[in-house]
Amino acid sequence: MEENQKPKAAPLDALVALVKDDLDAVNRTIVERMDSPVALIPQLAGHIVAAGGKRLRPLLTLASARMCGYDGVAEGQMRHVNLATCVEFIHTATLLHDDVVDESALRRGKQSANAVWGNQASVLVGDFLFSRAFELMVEDGSLKVLAILSRASSVIAEGEVAQLITTNDTDTDEAAYLGVVQGKTAELFAAACQVGGVVAEQDETREKALRDYGMALGIAFQLVDDFLDYSAKQEALGKTVGDDFREGKLTLPVILAFQRGSEEEKTFWRRCLEDMDQTDADLAHAMDLMRAHGSLDETLTRARDYGAQARAALEVFPDSPVRQCLLDIVDFTVERAY
Amino acid sequence: MEENQKPKAAPLDALVALVKDDLDAVNRTIVERMDSPVALIPQLAGHIVAAGGKRLRPLLTLASARMCGYDGVAEGQMRHVNLATCVEFIHTATLLHDDVVDESALRRGKQSANAVWGNQASVLVGDFLFSRAFELMVEDGSLKVLAILSRASSVIAEGEVAQLITTNDTDTDEAAYLGVVQGKTAELFAAACQVGGVVAEQDETREKALRDYGMALGIAFQLVDDFLDYSAKQEALGKTVGDDFREGKLTLPVILAFQRGSEEEKTFWRRCLEDMDQTDADLAHAMDLMRAHGSLDETLTRARDYGAQARAALEVFPDSPVRQCLLDIVDFTVERAY
Repeated sequence: MEENQKPKAAPLDALVALVKDDLDAVNRTIVERMDSPVALIPQLAGHIVAAGGKRLRPLLTLASARMCGYDGVAEGQMRHVNLATCVEFIHTATLLHDDVVDESALRRGKQSANAVWGNQASVLVGDFLFSRAFELMVEDGSLKVLAILSRASSVIAEGEVAQLITTNDTDTDEAAYLGVVQGKTAELFAAACQVGGVVAEQDETREKALRDYGMALGIAFQLVDDFLDYSAKQEALGKTVGDDFREGKLTLPVILAFQRGSEEEKTFWRRCLEDMDQTDADLAHAMDLMRAHGSLDETLTRARDYGAQARAALEVFPDSPVRQCLLDIVDFTVERAY
Repeated sequence: MEENQKPKAAPLDALVALVKDDLDAVNRTIVERMDSPVALIPQLAGHIVAAGGKRLRPLLTLASARMCGYDGVAEGQMRHVNLATCVEFIHTATLLHDDVVDESALRRGKQSANAVWGNQASVLVGDFLFSRAFELMVEDGSLKVLAILSRASSVIAEGEVAQLITTNDTDTDEAAYLGVVQGKTAELFAAACQVGGVVAEQDETREKALRDYGMALGIAFQLVDDFLDYSAKQEALGKTVGDDFREGKLTLPVILAFQRGSEEEKTFWRRCLEDMDQTDADLAHAMDLMRAHGSLDETLTRARDYGAQARAALEVFPDSPVRQCLLDIVDFTVERAY
């Protein structure tokens, strides 16, 4: 099987191959459900949905359901497809609102939606997709799913506001950072997996295992992202290095370096990240300090720990090709750092 | 009874008096449910909720439920209170997102939330309140209510995007304008009333009557708002005249004047509203043109027509103090133009 031939090379591709019919159905449902007589809505939503690319979160819903024995569209089952679409709509809405929040001109190399259409349209089309997600959930009819995804949505918003507050605040500690990461990133991974278990009518133990898997995977994912922001590998991928630094974001590599730094170093960090008074040379110095204090390596160590937690969570499920893909995705998530 | 002594003077006050226990419970629920460990959320949400003042939309839910025989908190019933809170949260979220959209520095004379805390926080706290509204609906447990309010939310977003598209477009016709008004304003009035009927377990006829009442009232409300933007009365209320003109919004008074205008007048409207090339004297000239073509009066005539539709919708309900208040609110909505 493809995912066993090249498990580390392309675990997402392997998973996509396993649930191809389901994912095709998700892509069709996305297009159908983001339609509106107001033409700007499908235009703008289509732009960001197309840029989204990997469909990692809806894939987690599809894979979780399949691993738990839910048959898929080939056997006429559609709940997981509709709910995976909800997950992607919620994710897309947060991306659109993030573009406003971060005043980011570029997202994944393409022009961000707000750079093309303006903040106003990004906010409103995000609201539309968010509402559409809830309409789809209502059609599905499960109050349990509605509870999971409405809770996830408010936790995401709390995480994003918490990130806003910790930005430019060098007093931010690891616990506050972890809270932000759980909210803004990991909660939707967790909910996406849990919902797959709900449609497959799993017991509480397995539902919680899926949630734990998604939460740990999401944290590992964000930790690696925050590591990569200071990695030369980022440059090789055509992305800029040090965006978080320039935006004054307090991510784990910085938090650890700050805590371990001398008073002189703390003064440096405060000038750069609180006062936002930065020169071209400051990023290189910041990266030297992070290396000197081992904070980049330690960020990856934490990512690996969370990766191990994610793998462990899947132990309650019997081996299967889909389960193997979900395990491989954990490794891929951590190893993209190298 | 108070509402019969001074029906025209303060119909909202009369309604507030009738459902005072319920409204107090709504205000408590608002404060409880906008709380979060992320302190900025209740701070910012509290600012906009306090500025909201009238609580017109949740009052419509409370009044509709009461008119249909739902007893209220005094008898231990809380569903209408929780759902009225949802309606207010959805409304508040749209206000927060509107502040971003309109780049408005002032809302109701107070500084807008985004002027104090920035666009980023306004977007995210709006998202939080929106999610909280859905969490509350899930606790209520009615899929019917969830369907009504998730549908309303996406219709509102569509209406707001449609307004964005019609701004600066003098080709906007009355039908397009009405679509915007139904979406951005009237849909939530309609849903607020309908939900009151759902908790009171009304039949389809009465539920539809409540929805029709809210829709017609909401359209009348927005028509009068759009009239008032060009009225000297606006100035007496301490608001500026001509905000819509300066923002290039195509509201009914302008649409009718444009359609009835000479080619020279059309050129004037295009310069002011499409090219956004305005001088201080242009607003006065615009108001002269609207008066000359009777478009301000005609806007009020339409508002009265919708007001009559709203009143007619309530004919299926037996007379009661609450019903009388709902009728008086229609008159008050139209008559605040004079």
